[in-house]
Amino acid sequence: MNIGMIEAAARRLEGHALRTPLLSSPFLDEIAGRHVFVKAECLQHTGSFKFRGGWSAVSALQPEIRARGVIAYSSGNHAQGVAMAARAHGAPAVIVMPSDAPRVKIENTRALGAEVVLYDRATGDRDAIGAALAEDRGLTLIKPFDEPQVIAGQGTTGLEIAEQAAALGVDTAEVLVPCGGGGLTSGIALALAARAPGLTVRPVEPEGFDDVARSLAGGRIERNARLSGSICDAIVTPSPGEITFPILSRLCGPGLSVTEDEVLAAMAAAVTRLHIVVEPGGAVALAAALFRPHEMTGEAVIAVCSGGNVDPAILARALVTRGG
Amino acid sequence: MNIGMIEAAARRLEGHALRTPLLSSPFLDEIAGRHVFVKAECLQHTGSFKFRGGWSAVSALQPEIRARGVIAYSSGNHAQGVAMAARAHGAPAVIVMPSDAPRVKIENTRALGAEVVLYDRATGDRDAIGAALAEDRGLTLIKPFDEPQVIAGQGTTGLEIAEQAAALGVDTAEVLVPCGGGGLTSGIALALAARAPGLTVRPVEPEGFDDVARSLAGGRIERNARLSGSICDAIVTPSPGEITFPILSRLCGPGLSVTEDEVLAAMAAAVTRLHIVVEPGGAVALAAALFRPHEMTGEAVIAVCSGGNVDPAILARALVTRGG
Repeated sequence: MNIGMIEAAARRLEGHALRTPLLSSPFLDEIAGRHVFVKAECLQHTGSFKFRGGWSAVSALQPEIRARGVIAYSSGNHAQGVAMAARAHGAPAVIVMPSDAPRVKIENTRALGAEVVLYDRATGDRDAIGAALAEDRGLTLIKPFDEPQVIAGQGTTGLEIAEQAAALGVDTAEVLVPCGGGGLTSGIALALAARAPGLTVRPVEPEGFDDVARSLAGGRIERNARLSGSICDAIVTPSPGEITFPILSRLCGPGLSVTEDEVLAAMAAAVTRLHIVVEPGGAVALAAALFRPHEMTGEAVIAVCSGGNVDPAILARALVTRGG
Repeated sequence: MNIGMIEAAARRLEGHALRTPLLSSPFLDEIAGRHVFVKAECLQHTGSFKFRGGWSAVSALQPEIRARGVIAYSSGNHAQGVAMAARAHGAPAVIVMPSDAPRVKIENTRALGAEVVLYDRATGDRDAIGAALAEDRGLTLIKPFDEPQVIAGQGTTGLEIAEQAAALGVDTAEVLVPCGGGGLTSGIALALAARAPGLTVRPVEPEGFDDVARSLAGGRIERNARLSGSICDAIVTPSPGEITFPILSRLCGPGLSVTEDEVLAAMAAAVTRLHIVVEPGGAVALAAALFRPHEMTGEAVIAVCSGGNVDPAILARALVTRGG
């Protein structure tokens, strides 16, 4: 993995991925006690940064390989990203999804032209299921995070952050990134290390699912004790990846974690102050920026809001309980 | 009014206003039966396009005039735009607001450093109140729409639409714009007439408050029978302006109007499909694009979502009733 791969991915994404805005509000600055900038990746096509990685990986395949089709396993956002990228390239897509994924994500993936195969998150092994399907049908497996071209695509988010921060005169800040397997976090960290070395990435996770923070603290890959029971389902993964963890370990500051109450309050603040819709897993970094100000340093913080595919009922709950 | 004034405003706004993205979703295309592009001006600073006009007007004042302060009357979004622009220029701001404006808008305006003067919408004359305050304190009145520098600022939205549509290869489309007094609509119409003549503006209003549509149809300024009772309060004004109406009349296609149910459904679709928050008045154009497809022509439509300052309870209602 190097900056050249991220820049090559940026060229393939040009004109296809949205350059998402860096938003701000004096009201958020006041809550946090410092300048808060929000990279609104929830506005990306398919509603999350996963479109970048999906497009990067699909577009990097040899045409004759791509024409046979791709397969991905995902709790939802990677699924939509790969499905939309595959359709745009005229390639069939099979998506292996947990049966308890939000209904809207399953429906959206099907509507984007993909074949959806469901499995039980508690008892099934999605890696094994994906590998078997790939072999049977000659599909290329596109992993959700531990895959260089996916990391390169997510890293294009970091290239944009570097440019947008420079345009605002921000050359020193912590960059908070919602972290599951670490594809987005490691991609951004690689891009910033090369293009904006004063911007330091810190991964953010939900409390109780802080495998990355513990892995960084201990210097080796740690696993989550459980994989369900969080409203931040989109970023709950067993552990950081074999490719992503060494990058995170080399380039990132310590991990942060936030409570579900903080996540809901951040979602409400995003609605009322920035006018964006952020899903729970995508809101953990903003929650840390707003409600954990003493756990970071500096005059400015940049929080990535990584996805917006929230069940309307959960967003309504956030608004009613925390949006006053 | 001419394109030169809009381009001059764009230079004054450079680095201060956000270049808002043009969003899309295959799910919205499917509802509308054509390509739908959404100019997400709800992401603008202070949550609406009004920041552009406020900044344009305040920045155009002579420094010694500006230092004495500005005054504006507004149901909320113009207030916030002027307040934030004035504060950034170090100028005092007095805002005359109806006492029934959404609480969040009154609070936000105060938090942005402005002095808020409330009046009764049914019995008070905001023009007279504003004029008296302006004379007493030597303030410069910044009208919400019938003011050339305000129209020029709003017109910068049209310059961006022209560039963004061209980048997507869209050179023929109807551009639907939420229309109150016509500042945004006339500004966009002037910009597009000069920079993208294949894009035709059509104003959109709530049913029962369609003064602009009736004025365009009749060839003279018509008034609304009532000014309260719409959830789209931000775009309910007595009539189009003396400056805006001739521009609308010369450059726009026929007006459209939409029901409150259509507005709520458009707000829910904006949340679930675009991940943006749109207030009722700001959602009328998207509502028309989605739910009145037979009242427009062409393969593509561009809808401006002009503001996002919605009471959380109203958004929650839209999500619960229409977001399924």
